[in-house]
Amino acid sequence: MPPLEPQPRLRVRQESPLNAEPEPGALIASFRTPNELFFIRNHGDIPTVDLETYRLTIDGLVESPLSLSLGDLRRFAQATVGATLQCAGNRRRELIEVSPIPNELPWSSEAISNAEWSGIPLRQALLAANPRPEARHVAFLGLDETERHGHRFQFGGSIPLEKAMHQQVLLADAMNGEPLPPAHGAPLRVVVPGYIGARSVKWLSRLTLRETPSDNYFQAKAYRLFPAAVGPDDVDWDTGLMLGEAPVNSVICSPASGDRLPAGRVTVRGWAMAGGGREIARVDVSTDGGGTWQTAELEAGGSGWTWRLWQAPLDLAPGEHEILCRAFDSAAQTQPAHPSQVWNFKGYANNAWHRVRVVAA
Amino acid sequence: MPPLEPQPRLRVRQESPLNAEPEPGALIASFRTPNELFFIRNHGDIPTVDLETYRLTIDGLVESPLSLSLGDLRRFAQATVGATLQCAGNRRRELIEVSPIPNELPWSSEAISNAEWSGIPLRQALLAANPRPEARHVAFLGLDETERHGHRFQFGGSIPLEKAMHQQVLLADAMNGEPLPPAHGAPLRVVVPGYIGARSVKWLSRLTLRETPSDNYFQAKAYRLFPAAVGPDDVDWDTGLMLGEAPVNSVICSPASGDRLPAGRVTVRGWAMAGGGREIARVDVSTDGGGTWQTAELEAGGSGWTWRLWQAPLDLAPGEHEILCRAFDSAAQTQPAHPSQVWNFKGYANNAWHRVRVVAA
Repeated sequence: MPPLEPQPRLRVRQESPLNAEPEPGALIASFRTPNELFFIRNHGDIPTVDLETYRLTIDGLVESPLSLSLGDLRRFAQATVGATLQCAGNRRRELIEVSPIPNELPWSSEAISNAEWSGIPLRQALLAANPRPEARHVAFLGLDETERHGHRFQFGGSIPLEKAMHQQVLLADAMNGEPLPPAHGAPLRVVVPGYIGARSVKWLSRLTLRETPSDNYFQAKAYRLFPAAVGPDDVDWDTGLMLGEAPVNSVICSPASGDRLPAGRVTVRGWAMAGGGREIARVDVSTDGGGTWQTAELEAGGSGWTWRLWQAPLDLAPGEHEILCRAFDSAAQTQPAHPSQVWNFKGYANNAWHRVRVVAA
Repeated sequence: MPPLEPQPRLRVRQESPLNAEPEPGALIASFRTPNELFFIRNHGDIPTVDLETYRLTIDGLVESPLSLSLGDLRRFAQATVGATLQCAGNRRRELIEVSPIPNELPWSSEAISNAEWSGIPLRQALLAANPRPEARHVAFLGLDETERHGHRFQFGGSIPLEKAMHQQVLLADAMNGEPLPPAHGAPLRVVVPGYIGARSVKWLSRLTLRETPSDNYFQAKAYRLFPAAVGPDDVDWDTGLMLGEAPVNSVICSPASGDRLPAGRVTVRGWAMAGGGREIARVDVSTDGGGTWQTAELEAGGSGWTWRLWQAPLDLAPGEHEILCRAFDSAAQTQPAHPSQVWNFKGYANNAWHRVRVVAA
């Protein structure tokens, strides 16, 4: 497999492994993110995969362990699902402004993208292997290798079997109608709509049915949410909230902070996303610090598994303005006001009201 | 059916129809709420039901409409489910302190209770009637009558068919091992775990399968969440968020606001509850206005369908203190800081940080 082409349209947050996000204006130019604009979150170098010898192993608590070639996988019924993926560390930069978070990627608010994925429903592959009654979780293992705390290992994670049996969880080999690009997990990745991006394991090599969540570092230790008082020196890694579904979130993509605009009518635009299949019910914008809110217009398209794009016309008098947004999901959940209220030392799941500062002249 | 006995252990918020909630200390004295302490939310007078002639009708988009006597219902397989019910208007009093909400019950924070319900899974009754493929919602109709805007009608509501097919949604005829009391819907009520209480229709007389949600006033018009800028004079009733799953919430039940305590060690206790089957992942308490938080201890017992009781030891110096609590659910969702951030003219779904003011001496 050739090395990844340069991604001139992405802002690179780390060269090796490659991590990059699009510009906010480009991100919301269309409901579906073009493949070359889709954010890239890698924990190791992109692996070279020999398509002839590639096998997907299904083992653990199953009656019929399987080893499936790409040809075997093509014999399952195919499905297509629209799903937005978002890194659990999206909007970490705003948490870093509250208090430093060393050794984690300083994502702005564009580590999120939306695509149409095609492949086979994970449930079909699991049913073919016949899970035992005691199976409760499905662990995923990628072919990408990384190193943490002196150990070298393959990236992995897991989801509850109940979630894995939902029709919309896919083993995807295509993205927006094109073969899955190397940076996005070719030849096969998991797509877990409604969950943090880390569970959508790329370069998938193995599915293991288990009684408990995966013991891979990225399930058992990382991607947990800890209280603000806990730090790297006193953390008990087994105690934090193991992230799965993501909280309701929204971001202003246009205008951007620092923009100078003509005073008068400005159209504010952005995205909103809920976790776990919940729908976006409403997006609000404010120019008085959250004292009063104006309801934004939700653009057509989307489902509980995708973002909603939105826009709101605002009249800005000459001067400095802070524009805020927040969303409500279908469970009447909304966002906290300040990143300080959700700060955590790993910098996950920031869903505070998003704020941009602009000057109208 | 005899008239309801007086409820000396409940605080009556309205005499007719009867609406009442327990004292906060009594509410959390046990994980399961005794029947005589369970909050009562009625929209009309408790109906008199003749058990001999009682029938449950199942109609609408079904192949086999049914009319079931209580004897017929007893022939279905029985199930027991622990579930906490909460009125969508719980904690309205704090919203009223922000801005008046006339004509709605001024619930404190105890319009919530937890019981073990027994009966038949709703899905069994629906499968017996054989829903047509186009059915998407199940409408419930109660025998209780009420009047709104000059019209007299029976209370009703609906849930999506997908939710109705979950094993934990019951047609319950027993509560904590006793026959369902008249005030709680005898002889038969719906119990919809994870949803606002209004969908758990009491004195159930009819299930109607539909393509759209119920057009009953309490589904189509009431129990919708509107923006703060919308009031009774300019509301478009068809636009608000139709409440189903409830947002994550938590309340301090002990000490109570106004309490005078000995300075030193105080154990703060309360409940926390998430919607839609999500688990409570963490409860925090603060004595500095939310600047720093201490993690509470979650008591054993409970599931995603029930509340979690919690406690936290605090050391209070002599003087006035404001104690706050907030919860995180398993989707990393937390609560907004102030009721003003979620105020709405019907006073629903207040899940702001809960605050009690005490004096330690």
